[in-house]
Amino acid sequence: MRPFNFGAGPAMLPQEVIETAKENLLNWNHTGVSMLELGHRTPDFIELLEETEALLRALLSISSEYHVLFLGTPARFHFGMIPLNFLNPKKEAGYLITGLWSSLAFKEALRVGRATCIASSEEVHFQNIPKEETWKLPQSPAYVYYTPNETVNGVRVDLNKTLSQYPLVADMTSCLLTEPLDINAYDLIFAGAQKNIANAGLTIVIIKDAFLKTIENESLLTYLDYRTHVQHRSLYATPPTFNCYIAKLMFDWIQKKGGVSALYKENCEKSSSLYAYLDASSFYHAEIRNKSDRSLTNVCFRMVRNELEETFLKEAEQEGLLNLRGHKTHGGLRASLYNAMPLDGVKKLIAFMDDFASGHIEKV
Amino acid sequence: MRPFNFGAGPAMLPQEVIETAKENLLNWNHTGVSMLELGHRTPDFIELLEETEALLRALLSISSEYHVLFLGTPARFHFGMIPLNFLNPKKEAGYLITGLWSSLAFKEALRVGRATCIASSEEVHFQNIPKEETWKLPQSPAYVYYTPNETVNGVRVDLNKTLSQYPLVADMTSCLLTEPLDINAYDLIFAGAQKNIANAGLTIVIIKDAFLKTIENESLLTYLDYRTHVQHRSLYATPPTFNCYIAKLMFDWIQKKGGVSALYKENCEKSSSLYAYLDASSFYHAEIRNKSDRSLTNVCFRMVRNELEETFLKEAEQEGLLNLRGHKTHGGLRASLYNAMPLDGVKKLIAFMDDFASGHIEKV
Repeated sequence: MRPFNFGAGPAMLPQEVIETAKENLLNWNHTGVSMLELGHRTPDFIELLEETEALLRALLSISSEYHVLFLGTPARFHFGMIPLNFLNPKKEAGYLITGLWSSLAFKEALRVGRATCIASSEEVHFQNIPKEETWKLPQSPAYVYYTPNETVNGVRVDLNKTLSQYPLVADMTSCLLTEPLDINAYDLIFAGAQKNIANAGLTIVIIKDAFLKTIENESLLTYLDYRTHVQHRSLYATPPTFNCYIAKLMFDWIQKKGGVSALYKENCEKSSSLYAYLDASSFYHAEIRNKSDRSLTNVCFRMVRNELEETFLKEAEQEGLLNLRGHKTHGGLRASLYNAMPLDGVKKLIAFMDDFASGHIEKV
Repeated sequence: MRPFNFGAGPAMLPQEVIETAKENLLNWNHTGVSMLELGHRTPDFIELLEETEALLRALLSISSEYHVLFLGTPARFHFGMIPLNFLNPKKEAGYLITGLWSSLAFKEALRVGRATCIASSEEVHFQNIPKEETWKLPQSPAYVYYTPNETVNGVRVDLNKTLSQYPLVADMTSCLLTEPLDINAYDLIFAGAQKNIANAGLTIVIIKDAFLKTIENESLLTYLDYRTHVQHRSLYATPPTFNCYIAKLMFDWIQKKGGVSALYKENCEKSSSLYAYLDASSFYHAEIRNKSDRSLTNVCFRMVRNELEETFLKEAEQEGLLNLRGHKTHGGLRASLYNAMPLDGVKKLIAFMDDFASGHIEKV
């Protein structure tokens, strides 16, 4: 039996996706050529990329008003790309700071131009989402930026009326395809693929054509201009061809599972069973107390005694429950429950946690 | 039998490298985890990356004065990164323009700051390397930039005394590891992996520490600063983990073949046999007339009648000789003979070309 990998990313992929990739590794699509070798300008690859894009558009109901890009640059690169493209001395942006990733994105924006903090939960160590009444929004911003799911601290921000009324940019690296999405509320979405989409090395950017047209910076370097990638349909530079193939297999898999809404149902079941267990436990507790702020996919938790963490991690690993360590800047424990994590993995984790608690409760 | 893929990149990989990757795809190194899923901060991956780096250092005798980076950004991204990091209003750079790639790199430098053209063969459609007597070098440049091998037109520039005396930057995307290299003559080398190193989606940067210390631009975005990647040892953002693994398998393979000098010997045999055939033919001719300017790996050629090209390509494909079409900006025919192309592939190509010529010579 395969172990369950609870790492926050690069994350688990469905076994059948890896098996299909394996079967076709030496000879893709009866071409005699490995997908690892396929040229990005061959008709075979162009067709594959078009199919991959069409599948994603179907899964998320992305209209022709949006461009979809498959790029080799990591998500973190886009922290700087976005302000470089959309800010200028006359334009400012607003950032909602709810964890490490939005905080780092905000810092990059400040290096480029004018950006203001809408609200931040840094003072409370990002343990909740700032209440909407406290948000301070800039007047007619170039865009408003937020991170719907923060992986380090395990919080989420739902799309709401306030956010919807602005040109909206979202880092969906850890949540794209985990839940239904009103794509039309957004102007730019980007997502590193290594959580729910493919192996590490691919970032998907979904950008509204009208928003692209607001770019006024004419001195951008060619690679650093989103218009370049739209114009060249992701092929300005050599794209990560194999990752695009894995993305296609993942999109096929999602479709077969019943689409995003079916996965969302399963994701809710996974995380609510773990949160319910944590809330009922006297040995463990979920870090995020406010239920509506809790991440759907990254469940951060602690034990009564921190010194038991190393033993917990070691014993979990022996049971095939891998990578439950919290982010290095945050500590604690974390179970990431992305699309490819089966409900059985969560059940096994809860059973293990219960055993572990029983074995250590007296010593507490 | 596998076809021979003469594409200029993403290119052929050795069958045994793909087979090893295939065997380990679902369960890497007995961890139960696929290499596609392995977290970049796990001890397993850190160890793999260190091994990969050590192998490359051994193959090219890279001393500790140099940093070696494994990045997810494509080579073309570095066209802008280099001037962004190393130019400033007081510093200029010199570019030797010998084909499409150096010409595009020069254009990006001009968008950033002061860059001058040392010499260009654009007027003669990049069909030779400008004679050294005509080179105009800037006084104390921040760096001199060149592309030792140009894939589109199939020319090469050897390292010489003139280049060696400057801080030297080279785009070695198509030649790294194909021939012995005096690494100490260079200050920065970058190479997209998709020709000789791995599947598409990885770029290797080798940078001298003393050169890194000449960066004076303090307003660089974090991702766009080479110092970030050196400081974080390639892990500032999630790296393309699977490509790093393929690179390690390739470095193992090169080592087993006898290292870079053994591959160089084979590469010379491959291209000289094809050039010799072209030079002796009345039906075909090599595009680059000057033998010392000819690429070791990208052999561009034409037939007596261009209108036979499509038939040639179609029949070649039927024989398992793939992707012999020249670059879209250049036309004609091209055989790319990177490290993974066996001598047998070249022999089969020559035999096919000879048959094709015999079948069409009367009609000419």
